[in-house]
Amino acid sequence: MKAILLHGPGDVRMEEVPDPRVEQPTDAVVRVVLSCVCGSDLHPYHRRMNPDAPPRPIGHEFLGVVEDVGADVRRFRRGDLVVAADTYCDGTCDFCRAGLHTSCRNGGYWAVKGVGGGQAEAVRVPQADGTLVKLPVPEDSPLLPSLLALADVYPTGYHGALRAGVTAGSTVTVIGDGAVGLFAVAAAKRMGAERIILMGRHKSRTDLGREFGATDVVAERGPEGIAKVRELTDGSPYVIEAVGFVEAYEQALGVVRDGGTISRIGVPQYVDGPVGMPLYRRNVTLTGGVAPVRAYMELLLPDVLSGAVPAGRVFDATVGLAGVADGYRAMDRRESLKVLIRP
Amino acid sequence: MKAILLHGPGDVRMEEVPDPRVEQPTDAVVRVVLSCVCGSDLHPYHRRMNPDAPPRPIGHEFLGVVEDVGADVRRFRRGDLVVAADTYCDGTCDFCRAGLHTSCRNGGYWAVKGVGGGQAEAVRVPQADGTLVKLPVPEDSPLLPSLLALADVYPTGYHGALRAGVTAGSTVTVIGDGAVGLFAVAAAKRMGAERIILMGRHKSRTDLGREFGATDVVAERGPEGIAKVRELTDGSPYVIEAVGFVEAYEQALGVVRDGGTISRIGVPQYVDGPVGMPLYRRNVTLTGGVAPVRAYMELLLPDVLSGAVPAGRVFDATVGLAGVADGYRAMDRRESLKVLIRP
Repeated sequence: MKAILLHGPGDVRMEEVPDPRVEQPTDAVVRVVLSCVCGSDLHPYHRRMNPDAPPRPIGHEFLGVVEDVGADVRRFRRGDLVVAADTYCDGTCDFCRAGLHTSCRNGGYWAVKGVGGGQAEAVRVPQADGTLVKLPVPEDSPLLPSLLALADVYPTGYHGALRAGVTAGSTVTVIGDGAVGLFAVAAAKRMGAERIILMGRHKSRTDLGREFGATDVVAERGPEGIAKVRELTDGSPYVIEAVGFVEAYEQALGVVRDGGTISRIGVPQYVDGPVGMPLYRRNVTLTGGVAPVRAYMELLLPDVLSGAVPAGRVFDATVGLAGVADGYRAMDRRESLKVLIRP
Repeated sequence: MKAILLHGPGDVRMEEVPDPRVEQPTDAVVRVVLSCVCGSDLHPYHRRMNPDAPPRPIGHEFLGVVEDVGADVRRFRRGDLVVAADTYCDGTCDFCRAGLHTSCRNGGYWAVKGVGGGQAEAVRVPQADGTLVKLPVPEDSPLLPSLLALADVYPTGYHGALRAGVTAGSTVTVIGDGAVGLFAVAAAKRMGAERIILMGRHKSRTDLGREFGATDVVAERGPEGIAKVRELTDGSPYVIEAVGFVEAYEQALGVVRDGGTISRIGVPQYVDGPVGMPLYRRNVTLTGGVAPVRAYMELLLPDVLSGAVPAGRVFDATVGLAGVADGYRAMDRRESLKVLIRP
C-alpha cells in the first residue's frame, strides 16, 4: 500500500510499504477513507532526525472502514465505518476507566513501535475494541470531514476547556488560532463561557474562531497582547494554551488572573520553563496535557452530527496521498489551516 | 523597641528600632506576645544581600495584644488578643472575597516596604480589620503556641491539601517533614485521606508526623525515595510539596500518578524547572502557591482549640529576642523543628 513517510526536516514522501495485517488477536485493520495533517505533525516535520534512523510513518487522525479483525475483537466487524482516537488504548485498564486513556497500560502512540501512521491507505489498529468508535453514517456521508475532527482536534480542545475548569458565565482566553485553539473556543462556548477571547493573528482563522464562539480577538502577541487582554479582562481566570511554544506559555502567564488556571493542549516544545515563583506567588494552576481523546468521542459526537459545531470548517484544503507533501508545506506556511487527505 | 534585623547571610541581630505607631487610619499596633521562626525565613537567611542595602526586619508569624488602632479600624480595640495572617490584606477586595487574600489589592508582605516583621516587640499591622483574627482565650492560655500555628503553618498545610484536591479515602504523599509538611499531613487527614505517606529523613519530625496522621514514612530521597513510594502506591494521585527546592519538585514529579496533582506550598527557590513534557505527557496538574492564610484561620481555629490537631507540638525550642540568632542556627542545622519566640 501507499503511506506517507517522514525522511527528515521538511521531507515527507509517499512510498510503497507492506500492507498492514492483523498481528495480535486484539488488532483490527482499517482502510483509511479520510485522514488529515495535524498542527502537531509540524513539530516532527521540523525536527532534525538521527541521520541513521529509517524513515518513519506519520499521522494520528483517521477514519475508515474495518477490513479485518483479530479473534478477540468483539465490538467491530468487517465493513464498519469507524474513527480512531489519537492514541490507541484498551479501554479497560485503571487509567482508561479513570478517563485517562493516554496513560493506558496497553496503549500507545500511532506511527511508532511497529504501528503505522494515519497518513496511509490502511492502518493496523491495536486494541481495536478500546480505540475505535463506530460512526452512524454511510461512507459517502458529507459529514465525514466533521466526524474526522473527533479523532483529535475537537476532543483536544474540549480537554483544554474541561481541565481549565471553565464555568458558565465566565471569561476564557484561548491562545492560538490553529484547529485545536478553535475547538477550545467551541468547547468553552459549550460549557457556557460568556466571554471568549481568542489570541491569534491569522484573520481567516480568527474569523472562523468567531463562528466557533469567540467574542473578542486579540491579534497582538507578547507584552502588547498581554496588555490588550488585561484591558479587556483585568486578568483571565481560565486560559487555554493551544500552541506549544514556550512563548505561548509565557503569554498565558501574562494574561492569567491570580488564582486562575492555565490549561495546556499545545504539545510543549520545551522541557524547562518558568515554573517556580511565577506560578507560586500568584497561585496559578497549570494543568492540561495530551488529551485522552477516547474519553470524549461519544460525548462530542452529537455536536458534530447535529451541526452544532461546524467541525469540518477547519479543513480548507484537500489532497490525495500524492499531494501530502504540498499539504505539509501549505500548513507550515500558514497558507492552510488544516489539510484533509483522501488517500 | 527591640526587633530582629537581618544583616546578611547567617547574620540576624536583635537591635533597637523606633516603636511602631499607627500611620494609616486602617492600622493597628500589636504588642507581640508570641512569635516564631518559619522554615521560609531560612531562605532570606541564606541569601546573599545587596551589601549596600540596609538591614531588614524579618518574621511573619505573631500573635499579641492590640495596643492602638487607627480611626477606621472597626473590629478590634485596645486589649484584644489577636493573631495575624502571614500577609496583610483588606478582606474586602475582589481577591479577598474570592479567598485569595495573598493577592489582595491593598495587601502585602510583612517586613518589607515600611512594614515591620513579626520577630519584634511590636508590629504595625496595616489593614487591621482584614488581617487580624481575635482569639477567644486569655493572654496566659497554654494554648497560645498552638494558636500561633494559625498565623501560617497550619493554614499553609491546609492550602496544600485543599489545592491538591485530596478526597476521602485517597492516598496522599507529602514531601518534607518541616512544620508545613506536618500540617499538610494533618490537613490531609482532616479531609479523610486514608493513606498519607510522609517523605522526610528526620526521625523526630516524622515521628511527630505519625501523630499528625502519617501512615507511612519514606526516609529516602531522589530516585530511591521515588521507587519506595511507587512500591507503596503505584503513583500517588495527590502530592503536596512542602520544601521549595527544585529537587523536591522533581521528587514530586517522580511520585505523582499520571493524571494526578502536585500542590506546592514550599516557597520555590527556583524560577525555571521542568514544566513542559514532564507534566504534559502525563496530564499532571501543578497547583498550590503562597497560602491565603487569612481565608482559613476561622475554619481551622476549632481544631486547635479542641486539641484535635496538637499544633503547638511543632515548637521544640523557645527563645527570647536575645536568643533568636541561636534559634536560626538551630533550625538551620535541623537541630530544632520550629523555634518559638517570647519577646
